[in-house]
Amino acid sequence: MALAIGVDIGGTKIAAGLVDEDGAVRGWHRRATPGSDVQLVEDRIVGAVAALRAAATGRRQAVVAVGVGAAGFVSAGGTRVLFAPHLAWRDEPLQQALQERIDLPVHVDNDANGAAWAEARFGAGRGESRLVCVTLGTGIGGGIVIDGRLERGRYGLAGEFGHMVVVPGGHRCECGNRGCWEQYASGRALGREARALLASGSPSAQPLLARAGGDPAQLTGEVVTQAATDGDPAAGELVTEVGEWLGAGLANLAAALDPGTFVVGGGVAAAGDLLLDPARAAFARTLTGRGHRPPAQIVAAERGPLAGVVGMADLARRAVLDGR
Amino acid sequence: MALAIGVDIGGTKIAAGLVDEDGAVRGWHRRATPGSDVQLVEDRIVGAVAALRAAATGRRQAVVAVGVGAAGFVSAGGTRVLFAPHLAWRDEPLQQALQERIDLPVHVDNDANGAAWAEARFGAGRGESRLVCVTLGTGIGGGIVIDGRLERGRYGLAGEFGHMVVVPGGHRCECGNRGCWEQYASGRALGREARALLASGSPSAQPLLARAGGDPAQLTGEVVTQAATDGDPAAGELVTEVGEWLGAGLANLAAALDPGTFVVGGGVAAAGDLLLDPARAAFARTLTGRGHRPPAQIVAAERGPLAGVVGMADLARRAVLDGR
Repeated sequence: MALAIGVDIGGTKIAAGLVDEDGAVRGWHRRATPGSDVQLVEDRIVGAVAALRAAATGRRQAVVAVGVGAAGFVSAGGTRVLFAPHLAWRDEPLQQALQERIDLPVHVDNDANGAAWAEARFGAGRGESRLVCVTLGTGIGGGIVIDGRLERGRYGLAGEFGHMVVVPGGHRCECGNRGCWEQYASGRALGREARALLASGSPSAQPLLARAGGDPAQLTGEVVTQAATDGDPAAGELVTEVGEWLGAGLANLAAALDPGTFVVGGGVAAAGDLLLDPARAAFARTLTGRGHRPPAQIVAAERGPLAGVVGMADLARRAVLDGR
Repeated sequence: MALAIGVDIGGTKIAAGLVDEDGAVRGWHRRATPGSDVQLVEDRIVGAVAALRAAATGRRQAVVAVGVGAAGFVSAGGTRVLFAPHLAWRDEPLQQALQERIDLPVHVDNDANGAAWAEARFGAGRGESRLVCVTLGTGIGGGIVIDGRLERGRYGLAGEFGHMVVVPGGHRCECGNRGCWEQYASGRALGREARALLASGSPSAQPLLARAGGDPAQLTGEVVTQAATDGDPAAGELVTEVGEWLGAGLANLAAALDPGTFVVGGGVAAAGDLLLDPARAAFARTLTGRGHRPPAQIVAAERGPLAGVVGMADLARRAVLDGR
């Protein structure tokens, strides 16, 4: 059984894991992302890979490749991180930098492509010929799988759905635009709206403030998602609103790409049907040609927070073994 | 040389042509689309095919297939027109109806897929591995060509870019939604805005009214496009505005699909750089990650108003000869 190591570098966390050929995770760990320090991110990746490799060697198991998913625009061929809205990378030769320090083939791709691949191969997208995966974390990541192939676009940048403008002149986005979808349907949107509710003086936000330890700055998307799951009414309304933006955006993607299945993953998706039911309702209400076409299904991701790790490991292994 | 017949049924016109293997048109004609009469549209198609076939026979040339492009949502496999925002088709078994009356293999597809295919094979998209074609006519048609294959989506409905919502709560669209892209970047949008300018009492619209024979209802996108090309200042401003919406929408598509080339065709594209320069400027201003990525090029279609005819003929010929 050839193992591969997957590393997933998100806006706030680095996760790494040892993954087998069936997509099972045989060991993993997670740390904070030192977002503004390129060198420190590299060091953490190298350290994580060394630790997981030592664990595999201790069990007399071979590791054949390392896949690194980066929350940024990764160039075709995976050589450079061109731009990362939430991290410090600007035209960073990440693949080469890691390859010089890691004695295994290193494959770099967009983190959301990793998650999409994991769902297509081992998760909620199995058997679907036209899959679109959206990952709702700090922002929105996206991946497209067509007939068993990741569609990366001409320059490697396909699937950046989060930066489609859904509200002209809307909220500012880290990418430099206004009104990007991820400003309305992401963990960051949940946190911002919760803080706005609090700032409005609404008493309904007080339980959320208590959950954040009395510090509005700690009122993040994760806190709101957990509160909604626990039945907090205000949090439930905020998740519903984000779900409606999610569904409207998926209807736009259905107009363009017509997938059979949308898989929704990422931290916000932990809210489950509290998020997906409003999304499905908004999708059904705004899908062009609705009533005259088979609608795509909208399902929750199955591979959880390690989907990116699993997918990147599998992509790296395939790149080595199959020349893909 | 095996000829094929292509038929392109748009919102306002039916065009048909005899097309050779190199994409050259060896004869064609065009008539108005009887939009609200399904039977009459069918009769016109059958009549057009018979006339072109007789012309080919007279020249002792063989016709091997008929491709029909419909301005509507065509199901996977091309059997049914599920829905046509601008025409009367609702779950219409067009392929079977035509096949019963035409003694050649009949292939049905979305009209914009035909135009995209013509540009990919014989026009402005030659050699491009990731092509997105948008056709600005009455509405907006779209087609996606990836690695020499039309990407039709899971149910045949990919490329309906015109029905992506770009302005929440915006102008009503024939598809039933509000704020669809084609309400802002199409011939219909040009006509609507020209009539609105006129209704506002602006003297700048008087030359346009004169071109429309004094009848505001005749102030169509075609009239405005022609006036802009002739140097009318008000028409130029209207085309600029449509161009800016075009560029903003292309930036959204670049975020999702990352093509190397956008080909812009259709009647409004007759305005050339009057339309495309504002589109390129808006695209450059709103592309996510701009400055950190190779931008797609935005080019004019090369195959003119018969692109759909050429593409549908070629798709039909390939379906017969190559089993594709």
